[in-house]
Amino acid sequence: MELSQALYTTRAMRRVKPDPIPDEILAKLLDAAVRAPSGGNTQSWRFLLVSDPAKRIALQKLYREGLTDLNATKYKAVMDLIKDGDPSDPEVIQAKKTNASAEWLADNLHLVPTLLFAWGKPNGESSIYPALWSLQLAATAEGIGTSLTTLLFKNHTQQVLELLGAPEPGVWVPMAMITLGYPTGRWGVAQRQPPHEVTFQDTWGNPVPWRVEKPLWQ
Amino acid sequence: MELSQALYTTRAMRRVKPDPIPDEILAKLLDAAVRAPSGGNTQSWRFLLVSDPAKRIALQKLYREGLTDLNATKYKAVMDLIKDGDPSDPEVIQAKKTNASAEWLADNLHLVPTLLFAWGKPNGESSIYPALWSLQLAATAEGIGTSLTTLLFKNHTQQVLELLGAPEPGVWVPMAMITLGYPTGRWGVAQRQPPHEVTFQDTWGNPVPWRVEKPLWQ
Repeated sequence: MELSQALYTTRAMRRVKPDPIPDEILAKLLDAAVRAPSGGNTQSWRFLLVSDPAKRIALQKLYREGLTDLNATKYKAVMDLIKDGDPSDPEVIQAKKTNASAEWLADNLHLVPTLLFAWGKPNGESSIYPALWSLQLAATAEGIGTSLTTLLFKNHTQQVLELLGAPEPGVWVPMAMITLGYPTGRWGVAQRQPPHEVTFQDTWGNPVPWRVEKPLWQ
Repeated sequence: MELSQALYTTRAMRRVKPDPIPDEILAKLLDAAVRAPSGGNTQSWRFLLVSDPAKRIALQKLYREGLTDLNATKYKAVMDLIKDGDPSDPEVIQAKKTNASAEWLADNLHLVPTLLFAWGKPNGESSIYPALWSLQLAATAEGIGTSLTTLLFKNHTQQVLELLGAPEPGVWVPMAMITLGYPTGRWGVAQRQPPHEVTFQDTWGNPVPWRVEKPLWQ
C-alpha cells in the first residue's frame, strides 16, 4: 500500500468480524511496530496479544463497566447532548455516531479476534506511540481495522493486569490496548481542520504562506 | 513510496543540508500530520514552522547549552562510557555514533532549514504523537530527514516560548521539536530487538507462536 493511502485512511475501526488474524500477519504487524524510533533507541516496550476466548470475555465485561462509568462521568455532557440536542445539529450527529461505535465495542469486545496490550517505561511513556501508530498503519495495509483505547487503564487497571498475569505498574507501565480485526465498514479519508489553520510561521499566531483547500490525498 | 519502506527506514536523520524546503512540501507534510487520529478526535494540536535565520541562530545557542547540560547530568554515564569504554565494544561504538550525531545537531541547528514545534493539550499529551510520526513518515517519502527532540523543553522552555512568541504552558503545552532537512546520509533499516522477544501471547511471559528471524522488509 502507498504510504499516503495508509496515512490518510487509518482511523478508529471498532466494528470488526470475529474472523481470526493469522499468526504470520500478527508477526508482520509487530515487526513493523518495533522499527519505530524510541527515545534514545531504548526500545522500552512489551506487547501482549490476547486471542484466548475466556480472557476476551472477561475483558469485555470490564470494558463494558468502564464505558458505562465514563458515560456517567467524563462523557456525561456528550451523553446529554445526544439525548437532548437538536438531532439535525452536525455535532449531535457526530457524537451519536462515535457513541454508537464505542457502544458496539463495549458490547462486543469479546468478538474482536485479537486484542493487543502495550507497555512502556514510566519516564518515556509517549515513546511507545510511534510504534503503536506504525502497527496501526501496517494493519491498514493488511486490511485490518484497529482502534486504540486506554479505557481499561482508567478504573480497572488492577483487574486487567491480574487477568493478563502482568506485573504491577512499576518497571512496566500499561499504556494502551489496540483492537484488531477485519472491519465490517470501509476506510475513508478523515475530515479534519485544515493544516494552515493550526500551523504558524516563525512566530505563534503568524499565518503560514500556504493553504490546503482539500485533503492532498483522497 | 510504499508504506513498508517508510515504516522500516524512517529514523533520526540529524545531519542535513541547509537547502530550504519548499512551502508546498511543508503543506503536504502538515496535511498528512492532521489526518492522524487524536483522543476523541479533538485535534488539539498547534504547529509552528521556524525558518527565520535569526530565530534559528538563537535556538541553536539554547540547544547547544541544553545538550552540554545533559551531557554533564542525565547522559554522564554514556559520556563516561564513550571516554573510558573499550573502543571495540559494540555498545561504545553505538554510543559514539549517536553522540556524534547529537553533537552535530547541537553545533549546527541554525543550518537546519526548518524547525517544527508542536503543542498539545495538558491532558492528552501523547495524542499528538501519531500526528508527528505521520509527518516524519511523510517526510521520508519526500526525501526529507527528520529527528524529534524534547531537549529544548527541559531547561529552556521559557526562553524558547518567548523567542517563538508562544503562550506560557497552560492551555497549550509544548511537546516536541522536529528538525527537517535534506539529509547528507542514507536511509537504512534500523536494527531492533526482534518482535517475538518483546511480545507475549495471552499471558505476560508466555511466548508467541511465531518468530521473525530478520526484518520482514529490507
